[in-house]
Amino acid sequence: MKRRPLHSRCPCGAVDVHTHVVPARFPHYAGGRGAEPRWPTMVEVDACHRSVVIEDRVFRTVPSDSWDPAVRTGQIADRGLAHQVLSPMPELLSYWLEPADGEAMCRFLNDFIAGLAAHDLGRFTGLGAVPLQDMDAAIRVLEHAASTLGLAGVEVASHVNGTPVGHPSFQPFFEAAQALDMVVFVHALRPTGLERLVGPAALEYALGYPTEVGLAAASMITGGTLARFPRLRVAFSHGAGTLGQMLPRLEHAWNVLPGFRVEGGPSPRELARRMFVDDLVYDGQAIRHLVDLFGPTQLMLGSDYPFAIQDPDPVGRLATAGLDPATHSAVLRDNALRWIDGPHQHTVSGD
Amino acid sequence: MKRRPLHSRCPCGAVDVHTHVVPARFPHYAGGRGAEPRWPTMVEVDACHRSVVIEDRVFRTVPSDSWDPAVRTGQIADRGLAHQVLSPMPELLSYWLEPADGEAMCRFLNDFIAGLAAHDLGRFTGLGAVPLQDMDAAIRVLEHAASTLGLAGVEVASHVNGTPVGHPSFQPFFEAAQALDMVVFVHALRPTGLERLVGPAALEYALGYPTEVGLAAASMITGGTLARFPRLRVAFSHGAGTLGQMLPRLEHAWNVLPGFRVEGGPSPRELARRMFVDDLVYDGQAIRHLVDLFGPTQLMLGSDYPFAIQDPDPVGRLATAGLDPATHSAVLRDNALRWIDGPHQHTVSGD
Repeated sequence: MKRRPLHSRCPCGAVDVHTHVVPARFPHYAGGRGAEPRWPTMVEVDACHRSVVIEDRVFRTVPSDSWDPAVRTGQIADRGLAHQVLSPMPELLSYWLEPADGEAMCRFLNDFIAGLAAHDLGRFTGLGAVPLQDMDAAIRVLEHAASTLGLAGVEVASHVNGTPVGHPSFQPFFEAAQALDMVVFVHALRPTGLERLVGPAALEYALGYPTEVGLAAASMITGGTLARFPRLRVAFSHGAGTLGQMLPRLEHAWNVLPGFRVEGGPSPRELARRMFVDDLVYDGQAIRHLVDLFGPTQLMLGSDYPFAIQDPDPVGRLATAGLDPATHSAVLRDNALRWIDGPHQHTVSGD
Repeated sequence: MKRRPLHSRCPCGAVDVHTHVVPARFPHYAGGRGAEPRWPTMVEVDACHRSVVIEDRVFRTVPSDSWDPAVRTGQIADRGLAHQVLSPMPELLSYWLEPADGEAMCRFLNDFIAGLAAHDLGRFTGLGAVPLQDMDAAIRVLEHAASTLGLAGVEVASHVNGTPVGHPSFQPFFEAAQALDMVVFVHALRPTGLERLVGPAALEYALGYPTEVGLAAASMITGGTLARFPRLRVAFSHGAGTLGQMLPRLEHAWNVLPGFRVEGGPSPRELARRMFVDDLVYDGQAIRHLVDLFGPTQLMLGSDYPFAIQDPDPVGRLATAGLDPATHSAVLRDNALRWIDGPHQHTVSGD
């Protein structure tokens, strides 16, 4: 299935790049371990909700928005949007499963997401998953997602079983993504630093996620991945989390401390401005700060729909940022087109 | 020794609230363990440098600025400053020593710092240390530092042997600090998340420190300490690190997720605006962002003098922020007076 550019499928309107999906059900575990309690199952709660059960516990109860394109279509309209980029609920990335099981889960997710997007290509663009616990399998699944399923890219987590996504060991994956013109969406997952949180368990999401994706984004700078693959189109969730607050200090360290500077290489600030980031920071002034940090061409609308911590009105939120009209419209739409379609696509409809 | 307000000791000029000291030598270990390799010793490197040796390794080689008031006085002038707030090199806080050993180290540091400040009270204000691994001892040492040594407050680390500084178990200390009118400077130390860093070891300072102090500042909000002690004057290093990037998301979680909101209590944003923070973020635009986040009355000049990652020109850096004249002058001086002297002191000289 040949991939069609986003601008030709959705000729106008706002694009939400950070929305998640969960399948209505999972296949029974059919791997080599006999039983795998970490393999998710789905339990019906009511007509509109199901619970994802992992290791005999409810991981999260999710609404039917998670799998039902009709519900999503209504929500797209209600929120003044035109299009959603779909990515898996991050916990489903399953890096902790045996490689063969992880590959099976990613292939299942990718089929599901491609099918959901195919329901209305004008409204949905799909990002899949790859089993990064096995580099060969990850590249195999990535190629299949690109060539056979027509997905636009994949979501990856901020780390894979503890190894940061910017570690050089993942560069073969990013090399393949660049070569295949597949975008990458780096999302926080299973954050570090939980032992520093004091308060309700959901601080994992409130504080742990921005910390985690901030360190992941930094690792893509300090580990060399962004410098090595200049045509890679990678986006980071939650406005790249805490990276913005650390970036000038990282730049200073690059200038004055030993071991940082790569002669002739781009500085951390320059590399950060190659990143795409969503604007999911819940505050207009914070959105303006992201524009200052990453540049007016890199920020994109993101909501975390349909999960509990979502920003229910991403278009309204963006309006509170008070951006100049050109930047405002770039964040609403044009930057997402540059991310999904690449810089060489012309934003005209009908090709 | 009665404490004299900063405004009476230093009637005008800029105040750098984030500068560190290291004694020229340490006393021999005299604790109950026979030998204690974690007790620091000092080794001369050259006429201007000594190495702090801990567990038979050089922890850090520091310049004579660290202990010599004459060198510091010259640097104060060279940098266009009037005054430095002195705090221990954080590693010396020694929370990991046996309580009696930790108390001995803190008492030694406090005597040293009070002596250094007494060399020229017009140029130096001293912050000491307390052995937070033993609450009774910490309060005892705090009282001595306040009443006998005339120190203005103490530096504490972002966590104590893994327990975040905002954990309710530390509230007796903060209660005493508020009652004694002692300010607190929370500094990053031994950061979490090191397993997420990819690159040179000094990323511990470039990325780990802002992450660590950001989570510490958040813990003072989510653990209830700031709400419980409204007259506490607590400042956070490195612009409170990553807190700024997480704060609107924390506020959103407080509004929409269960377990966050305290009915009738101040919100995370309101509590953050009770914090003092230094402006050590190496970028004018980032400094402006801190003013927006914490308010024009809370930001203070900070440089990390005399360590390698210091900002060598904090006054020049602040000038690049383009703040309005009133805020600019508040950051240079007035906010530090409010932190050290309290809101009820009048900024007139000679009392």
